[in-house]
Amino acid sequence: MKRSKIESLLKEGCPKPEVLICGWVRTKRDSKEFSFLEVNDGSCLKSIQVIVDADTPGYKSLANIATGAGISVEGELVASPGKGQSLEIRSKELTLLGGSPENYPLQKKRHSDEFLRTIAHLRPRTNKYGAIFRIRSKTTQIIHRFFEERGFFCIHTPIITGSDCEGAGEMFRVTTVSGTAPVEEDFFSKETNLTVSGQLPAEMLALSLGDVYSFGPTFRAENSNTSRHAAEFWMLEPEMAFCDLSGNMDVAEDLIKFVVAGILDECADDIALFANFVDKTLMATLTSLRDDNYVRLPYRDAIDILKSAKKKFEYPVAFGSDLQSEHERYLAEEHFKKPVFLFNYPKAIKPFYMRVNDDNETVAAMDLLVPRIGELIGGSQREERMDVLQSRMKEMDLPEEEYWWYIDSRKFGSVPHSGFGLGFERLLMLLTGISNIRDVIAFPRTPGSIDF
Amino acid sequence: MKRSKIESLLKEGCPKPEVLICGWVRTKRDSKEFSFLEVNDGSCLKSIQVIVDADTPGYKSLANIATGAGISVEGELVASPGKGQSLEIRSKELTLLGGSPENYPLQKKRHSDEFLRTIAHLRPRTNKYGAIFRIRSKTTQIIHRFFEERGFFCIHTPIITGSDCEGAGEMFRVTTVSGTAPVEEDFFSKETNLTVSGQLPAEMLALSLGDVYSFGPTFRAENSNTSRHAAEFWMLEPEMAFCDLSGNMDVAEDLIKFVVAGILDECADDIALFANFVDKTLMATLTSLRDDNYVRLPYRDAIDILKSAKKKFEYPVAFGSDLQSEHERYLAEEHFKKPVFLFNYPKAIKPFYMRVNDDNETVAAMDLLVPRIGELIGGSQREERMDVLQSRMKEMDLPEEEYWWYIDSRKFGSVPHSGFGLGFERLLMLLTGISNIRDVIAFPRTPGSIDF
Repeated sequence: MKRSKIESLLKEGCPKPEVLICGWVRTKRDSKEFSFLEVNDGSCLKSIQVIVDADTPGYKSLANIATGAGISVEGELVASPGKGQSLEIRSKELTLLGGSPENYPLQKKRHSDEFLRTIAHLRPRTNKYGAIFRIRSKTTQIIHRFFEERGFFCIHTPIITGSDCEGAGEMFRVTTVSGTAPVEEDFFSKETNLTVSGQLPAEMLALSLGDVYSFGPTFRAENSNTSRHAAEFWMLEPEMAFCDLSGNMDVAEDLIKFVVAGILDECADDIALFANFVDKTLMATLTSLRDDNYVRLPYRDAIDILKSAKKKFEYPVAFGSDLQSEHERYLAEEHFKKPVFLFNYPKAIKPFYMRVNDDNETVAAMDLLVPRIGELIGGSQREERMDVLQSRMKEMDLPEEEYWWYIDSRKFGSVPHSGFGLGFERLLMLLTGISNIRDVIAFPRTPGSIDF
Repeated sequence: MKRSKIESLLKEGCPKPEVLICGWVRTKRDSKEFSFLEVNDGSCLKSIQVIVDADTPGYKSLANIATGAGISVEGELVASPGKGQSLEIRSKELTLLGGSPENYPLQKKRHSDEFLRTIAHLRPRTNKYGAIFRIRSKTTQIIHRFFEERGFFCIHTPIITGSDCEGAGEMFRVTTVSGTAPVEEDFFSKETNLTVSGQLPAEMLALSLGDVYSFGPTFRAENSNTSRHAAEFWMLEPEMAFCDLSGNMDVAEDLIKFVVAGILDECADDIALFANFVDKTLMATLTSLRDDNYVRLPYRDAIDILKSAKKKFEYPVAFGSDLQSEHERYLAEEHFKKPVFLFNYPKAIKPFYMRVNDDNETVAAMDLLVPRIGELIGGSQREERMDVLQSRMKEMDLPEEEYWWYIDSRKFGSVPHSGFGLGFERLLMLLTGISNIRDVIAFPRTPGSIDF
């Protein structure tokens, strides 16, 4: 018989005279005549109750079945007369697949997130982490759906890069030789690093195929042990030809709304867990993200708002300063109480590839600020004018010969184009209310931490 | 006005009084009264013909419009009286976005694949490479669809790994210190590498969530300059709890059939290009992949077939030898003329995690062999019995302390499970008939080659 997933059984309902389920025991409870097993198979948050009586083949194995054991059950799916569940399985055969000794770390009790990080290989078996990784999966699938429906092409940009100046942060070195060997002996005969962004290659593909997106791992070798930084994380980077900054913000807003609506619709049980136990404001945040029109505010105006705010900030603000998380959150959480696009940032604090505005003081950059997270998205219209691009590179002391191919794309059929980067783990923190990035990645990589 | 993609216009048909298209000029042809521009925007293989006359605003910019130029056109979409196209656009306004000087490398003529690799940033603007990357995109999206429909969860396994013995090949070292610094000063206080497979972490998630798949980059630091090897490539790795070897082959066969059917259906024009100009046998290969039942053959029987084959092989075969590409291709191309699963390989040539069969001589491994490519998929039922796993690790001198978490998964609620790995670029070579892996990756990484 083919196994049924508990998610499907609960959706389809009963009666079904013959079903086979497989899963892991959450609890076992004995009464005079029956034993009750709560079984979860990871397909959904809910477990299903299995009733075993002394006539059931395999009944004797019950003695060895404890929390954590892997079992399979054949039986009848029926309406449950008991409280707390609508359906249950009356077992016709019980098989113990793998026992679980008393030192199983996930006994039925509350465990701290800190403890669960030390058993990252087992924590997805808990309600909370099962829910996180189901939401992570569905978010990924919804992202692909969003772009596929809109005719975007999924691209894969390189992870190992020969460029050491992508400019978005400290890089990991990639090598096959010991540190004293000459670079000519290294695998690529050149110093190579792990990418911090796929944007520049993505632009090449947008300038061929039109609308593209890359979705893959990126890396920062920054030695900062915060709840918001990981050395390895996933980034979504759409890039659109024939698109200006306003169109760029349109895509970003549509994307977030589509993802939030999809997750609320398709992961309702898992989201409810976070709304009930992790962040009481979660549903309000998510419905605002889905339903509100996002504010679009020039950076200059944001500085004015922050200057006249009654709130005391740790860092001062002035035109030309990079906003801190406290400022970003103030704007989204307190002042506007909804998502805010800031745009037209000062040229001096932004990378060379952002399009210079006519004022020659700002660039066509945009950040999306959201409650609790701060910056979720950063993007820009790209500088498509070759002469402006080259003079910006000169200003910033970037070696043109390293970027010959990038400059080529402005030499031959250059067109306006725009794109942005979205930190996938920050999106997951926004969707779940989880406050530590280590808890939305199955096996997180942070300074000094590379277990599993 | 919002731009229309050429793919949509051709699908929707005419007449449309007002459309805006943007794209790159492939050719320009002048007649007495009109100029004809063939414009491609990357959304599909086909270009669209634009007719410009002297009354069109922007007509003067025509002088500066050559092959490769970026333009936008507003006009009327009408049925074309000319040959070679069903629709055309009578322009009402023409705008030159970015010119293309005479040294544009992609003039209208045949270019060799070798030359195009040197301009990987521009080659997606050609028919052939545009088609490849559209197929690459659609294949990615179809893969996600396949697994989503079947209730699989998409997972992201780590790229940087602390394990140096995943056993699938030479690894790249990842570091933030110079080679003479003590390892304690390195970012993770440990030697770290780029992953060669996400399987072991994927097993942890399958043993929590049921059915999962990871799809991401993997790395081999092998210094082999062949047409089939790249240092960086994408791998699809599904992992299924409560699944044996036969179920594993079912998933693999269903997946390939689903992908091939989807590509034939959704990328018909692009596939036709490859069938016409790259591989005349392509359609026969693809329909066989979609429609035939795949052979399932024990390795032992394959050895017998190869031994009694009339063909002269370079490498001899005997029970216990690893099959070479020539053997794999003989079985799929000549003997069976369709895809073949080989299963139950000798234990001695397979990794520690594959389940030992009752004969104690073979393991529950399977490879899918396909015409032209050889091995497309490699997988196994995993060893779920802790004692057998540990004795296999001892036999192979693997340090148990490095794998404590992996062994844990057999200690607590261990259940039968299976999975496989599919080399994504090999799948793309199979789907397109392209014979060099460098031509299905936007920016390939091979020994000594790290441009772009």
